[in-house]
Amino acid sequence: MQVLRTPQALNRRLEPHRNKKNSVGFVPTMGFLHEGHLSLVRRSKKENDITVVSIFINPLQFGPKEDLNRYPRNIKRDKSLLKKENTEFLFIPETRDVYAEDFQTTAKVGYLSGRLCGRSRPTHFQGVATVVLKFLNMIKPSSLYLGQKDYQQFRVIEKMVEDLNLAVHVKMHPIVREKDGLAMSSRNVYLNKKDRAQAPVLYQALKAAVRAVKTGERNTSRIKAGMRQVLKKAGTLRLDYLEIVDARNLAPVVTLDKNVRVVAALAGFFGPTRLIDNILIKA
Amino acid sequence: MQVLRTPQALNRRLEPHRNKKNSVGFVPTMGFLHEGHLSLVRRSKKENDITVVSIFINPLQFGPKEDLNRYPRNIKRDKSLLKKENTEFLFIPETRDVYAEDFQTTAKVGYLSGRLCGRSRPTHFQGVATVVLKFLNMIKPSSLYLGQKDYQQFRVIEKMVEDLNLAVHVKMHPIVREKDGLAMSSRNVYLNKKDRAQAPVLYQALKAAVRAVKTGERNTSRIKAGMRQVLKKAGTLRLDYLEIVDARNLAPVVTLDKNVRVVAALAGFFGPTRLIDNILIKA
Repeated sequence: MQVLRTPQALNRRLEPHRNKKNSVGFVPTMGFLHEGHLSLVRRSKKENDITVVSIFINPLQFGPKEDLNRYPRNIKRDKSLLKKENTEFLFIPETRDVYAEDFQTTAKVGYLSGRLCGRSRPTHFQGVATVVLKFLNMIKPSSLYLGQKDYQQFRVIEKMVEDLNLAVHVKMHPIVREKDGLAMSSRNVYLNKKDRAQAPVLYQALKAAVRAVKTGERNTSRIKAGMRQVLKKAGTLRLDYLEIVDARNLAPVVTLDKNVRVVAALAGFFGPTRLIDNILIKA
Repeated sequence: MQVLRTPQALNRRLEPHRNKKNSVGFVPTMGFLHEGHLSLVRRSKKENDITVVSIFINPLQFGPKEDLNRYPRNIKRDKSLLKKENTEFLFIPETRDVYAEDFQTTAKVGYLSGRLCGRSRPTHFQGVATVVLKFLNMIKPSSLYLGQKDYQQFRVIEKMVEDLNLAVHVKMHPIVREKDGLAMSSRNVYLNKKDRAQAPVLYQALKAAVRAVKTGERNTSRIKAGMRQVLKKAGTLRLDYLEIVDARNLAPVVTLDKNVRVVAALAGFFGPTRLIDNILIKA
């Protein structure tokens, strides 16, 4: 595994592969890798000649009161995990090599960025879109791999790629869960024992939505009421949002329709720790 | 000259050239071509294996009260001029092929976009940056050619290319002027006879600034006072702004300094027609 620290060094190493028309898969991460990340790496390895993984904790996507400084880090362990997967390239740039001092350009995906998580994190998706756009320009991958756990992020990036005429395939990979159903997330390490025990309730609520739809329920108010009932089991959970939205434009759906794929999505706090989860539902 | 109407058709024609590592020069225009545009085409032809010229009146860069609908058009004449220059590719997309119905992604260059023309045209440079970014992604040129007349546009695009890690050289080409000094512009056709006769005063004011600096003046307030004196000759001119700014960050300069390249820039209305001009000054 080659570890590159600057966009220039990375570009030099990738150029021969591009010239040989090798396909390049790209998996962007913020490090502290778990099985969710590794499943993206395996998929990219299977579908491409070479795979580039980036580890970069992007300051632009954190709000002023968010967890940028305490975001978990363990580069040594990350490297060892990526080596085991036979990852070809690991890109770990310094912040100053990504954002020059007079950096001032942002990419913004309008409507999609303001929905769901965008309401409590108003500049988050602008930061995500900007850094992904930069990395796509540096790496010029054939395919970009994103996890379904950040479903809104996936749609924002997919829309940006379409709107800006970028030549990359954006591929979403399913959520990887702990045995008790909690979606894997680097932020799960923040949870104390009691909250960790309650956290699987998020997934249980999503499964309740799927069950309700399977039994014929089409009214999303009633489906959400059922989900809230499940969430009540977790006494320390402070719900941020619970929504059932059109999977493409993330607009709220009132009545389910066979022709519209929807996502049930939620976010909530255990103490200061914000967790998200979602599930795709076909009516 | 091959005329292409869609990004897909253009891409198919350019792909063999990219594979052969031919250098591609790109000259974006809004049509109604004059010698200023053609000087960019000639420069691109000289410096590249093939040249792509685009004609696209970009709705995103016009404000709600601006001249989008009456912007001058003459595609037949434009084609004939470009053929005479042996232009290889002309790209004339329809608006719907550039902006899909649910298009919602914009690129914004922060500080630079708010200065000079940005004060009276608050969304203009966002529209310019977005369309240029899209066209760069469609065409993937080696070099991009922009005229100095839109100096702020040049800096905004140059900064965007740097900030977003785009692999294109941004090249600025000098202003081409009418015999009486008026900077060539598609909008000059709007001027009535009286205004057209007065319009060269813009360039005369810029030359007065250069003369003042040559005689040792370093105080920009006094230089601008001299320029305003010249502009008074044009009774019908309504000045929008007159500034002397740092050529890189477009911030106002109070005292000229040998080490800082500056631009004297102005904009003014003759009737409803807004004209701009500028000149680079070395102290």
